Amino acid sequence: MNNLLIAQSGGPTAAINATVTGILSLALIHDQVDTIYGAIYGVKGLLEENIINISQKIKNTVDLDQLTQTPASALGSCRYKLPEETEDAQVYEKIIEILRRYEIRYFIYIGGNDSMDTVDKLNRYCDKNGITDITVVGAPKTIDNDLVVTDHCPGFGSAAKYIATSFAEIERDCNVYDGKSVTIVEVMGRNSGWLTAASALSRINGGSGPDLIYLCERAFSMETFLNDVKEVLKKQSAVLVAVSEGIKDSDKKYIFERGQIAAKDAFGHTTLSGAAKVLETVIQQEIGCKVRSIELSVMQRCSAHITSATDIEESKLLGSKALLNALEKKGGTMAAIIRQSSRPYNVSYEAVPVSEICNKEKKVPKEYINEAGNDVTEEMMEYLKPLIQGENAVVYRKGIPTYFVF
Amino acid sequence: MNNLLIAQSGGPTAAINATVTGILSLALIHDQVDTIYGAIYGVKGLLEENIINISQKIKNTVDLDQLTQTPASALGSCRYKLPEETEDAQVYEKIIEILRRYEIRYFIYIGGNDSMDTVDKLNRYCDKNGITDITVVGAPKTIDNDLVVTDHCPGFGSAAKYIATSFAEIERDCNVYDGKSVTIVEVMGRNSGWLTAASALSRINGGSGPDLIYLCERAFSMETFLNDVKEVLKKQSAVLVAVSEGIKDSDKKYIFERGQIAAKDAFGHTTLSGAAKVLETVIQQEIGCKVRSIELSVMQRCSAHITSATDIEESKLLGSKALLNALEKKGGTMAAIIRQSSRPYNVSYEAVPVSEICNKEKKVPKEYINEAGNDVTEEMMEYLKPLIQGENAVVYRKGIPTYFVF
Repeated sequence: MNNLLIAQSGGPTAAINATVTGILSLALIHDQVDTIYGAIYGVKGLLEENIINISQKIKNTVDLDQLTQTPASALGSCRYKLPEETEDAQVYEKIIEILRRYEIRYFIYIGGNDSMDTVDKLNRYCDKNGITDITVVGAPKTIDNDLVVTDHCPGFGSAAKYIATSFAEIERDCNVYDGKSVTIVEVMGRNSGWLTAASALSRINGGSGPDLIYLCERAFSMETFLNDVKEVLKKQSAVLVAVSEGIKDSDKKYIFERGQIAAKDAFGHTTLSGAAKVLETVIQQEIGCKVRSIELSVMQRCSAHITSATDIEESKLLGSKALLNALEKKGGTMAAIIRQSSRPYNVSYEAVPVSEICNKEKKVPKEYINEAGNDVTEEMMEYLKPLIQGENAVVYRKGIPTYFVF
Repeated sequence: MNNLLIAQSGGPTAAINATVTGILSLALIHDQVDTIYGAIYGVKGLLEENIINISQKIKNTVDLDQLTQTPASALGSCRYKLPEETEDAQVYEKIIEILRRYEIRYFIYIGGNDSMDTVDKLNRYCDKNGITDITVVGAPKTIDNDLVVTDHCPGFGSAAKYIATSFAEIERDCNVYDGKSVTIVEVMGRNSGWLTAASALSRINGGSGPDLIYLCERAFSMETFLNDVKEVLKKQSAVLVAVSEGIKDSDKKYIFERGQIAAKDAFGHTTLSGAAKVLETVIQQEIGCKVRSIELSVMQRCSAHITSATDIEESKLLGSKALLNALEKKGGTMAAIIRQSSRPYNVSYEAVPVSEICNKEKKVPKEYINEAGNDVTEEMMEYLKPLIQGENAVVYRKGIPTYFVF
């Protein structure tokens, strides 16, 4: 038997199941694939033999479509890093033993940096130990868009579309009253500002979008920030600010950490607040106008009711490509998107070595941030625009979208 | 000339402009209406003669459709309460003078409690002073759903659909890892729990939805809450909680106020945190598992990209009905929805006296909350279900929804 195993890892996205669908679409019609298994909760689940038979669960294309529009890893996830073989060879032996028992020839791991590290380690173990009956490959996923080599990551485009749309809506919300007000919206991204940059896409139909955008790649100065806000308030009543959760000061200290010191509630408990909340408090004290902070929170990664058709289709194709890579015995590769041009938008799908990808982070390059450090450049807009194009016809039942649960 | 004036007031919703569209749809084809004006920033704008000519701005049905799908009062809003005539008759004289100068015969004010108070006061002033050439009527709007007499309020159904969908998505997000975790989602509603109750609609396609729901109509006990969470944690890993921003303890003190006492950041600033954040901190200390709090914030009132077709269509009809009421000289009335039955869903549109509506609040009735005070009942579900039915085809351009700006 030539069985296939799929597992998912890392944080949820709205597109991660589309990659599973892409794998299934090809696997279901391919003679070289027999039973399709899924490990529940990633490699951790594999080690616990928490394995389901996907072939039995996905009965038709309606199931496939529902799975595609379901947010967050339908197979569950884990944040588990494989030890080095030198530290614990038994883990590897156990994985190989389980895979062989299930007659699994192809193992596709969908995830981000850490998951690609797992693919790399397993592949090296197989290579070193002459294991040729098992091929381990990766498929990318992360709303953070911080994987290197691949032009962008599945899940990012949909999150970017949600963020751009939300900013366009929040801009309308901000402008209903005529008094001075500041609205600070915190966007996910501890170490990379890609998602925060996507807020600028809210301008593409003529909206003003965020008046100020602060990415975590630039050192954040509270003084400059206050001056920036004051400048905008001279020109208009409502100021809209986008800020990465991971903005740091010049000492590389997270701004949100400032909110934690001495922040105790009535019970004496320490409360943790985000970067936007810290900025809200500072504006309140230093400027004194109406101010509020908003966190887009998990909605930006799981709002499957508004996804980018480009992102979902690409996520599927990357899944299919990962399976092709496995079938072609290209162990240790990740399916990646290589951009040929932005206008027209033209990409190719390639197998790239995971060793070049794992444990690295793609930050926003300097030329994508304006000189003042409070906005993005036209280059960034050119990069981002193609990724949010197209809408998906979400299937609703009784008023809410339908989701697939294994 | 028989001119018409429209103004909007109170907090933003995703449906408030649909009511304007409903008025315009009838006004544009009605012989009894000449020029259509809009007051910018509600009655406050009217007093400042901040008036635009809507007839010149809305050129075709494409404009109308864009206005319909634009969130938050396109004409701006205010939180301005008219003084009693006995306190300041000049304000009334000024309003009448401006209306007459613009040859306005019909004034439709779209809003909530306070706005209906304005309609009531202006109408009484006209009655008392023999002003028969001006008719002032109201059209309802509020995501809080707290207006009496009308079965429900425009904007509520769309907010409910957004909340139900978000909870369905967050439920998927919560369940990707296998460890113990608690997610607390705070929903808008200082004094009424209707929006929080809508979280239960996330169950209608088989999802488990929130495991615990706390509405602000019931006194909130921290001890009971902790016990409830512990009980659910015995049965499952991930616990999802919905909570009204306005939950209060048995002393009628807001739970979110507990988060403010002594909560000072590194700058010595007081930070304000919501009810969910307070509960997050308590769970962290008392249970110690992974816990996070989420505020649906303004997204629940301005997410025009996901609206209820029922809500948008009803909002339009209420707008048209309000204009009919004005044309029929039914001053001092508000267009209201009277429910005839839930299954099949059957409503009528009526003119009800604003005097019965203004300055009152419709709270969630006892029979809509379960005995334990941690969920809603089947009666609540029957009430809510029809309000989120149907989806609207949102027009996107270049990847984000298009919005209309006057």
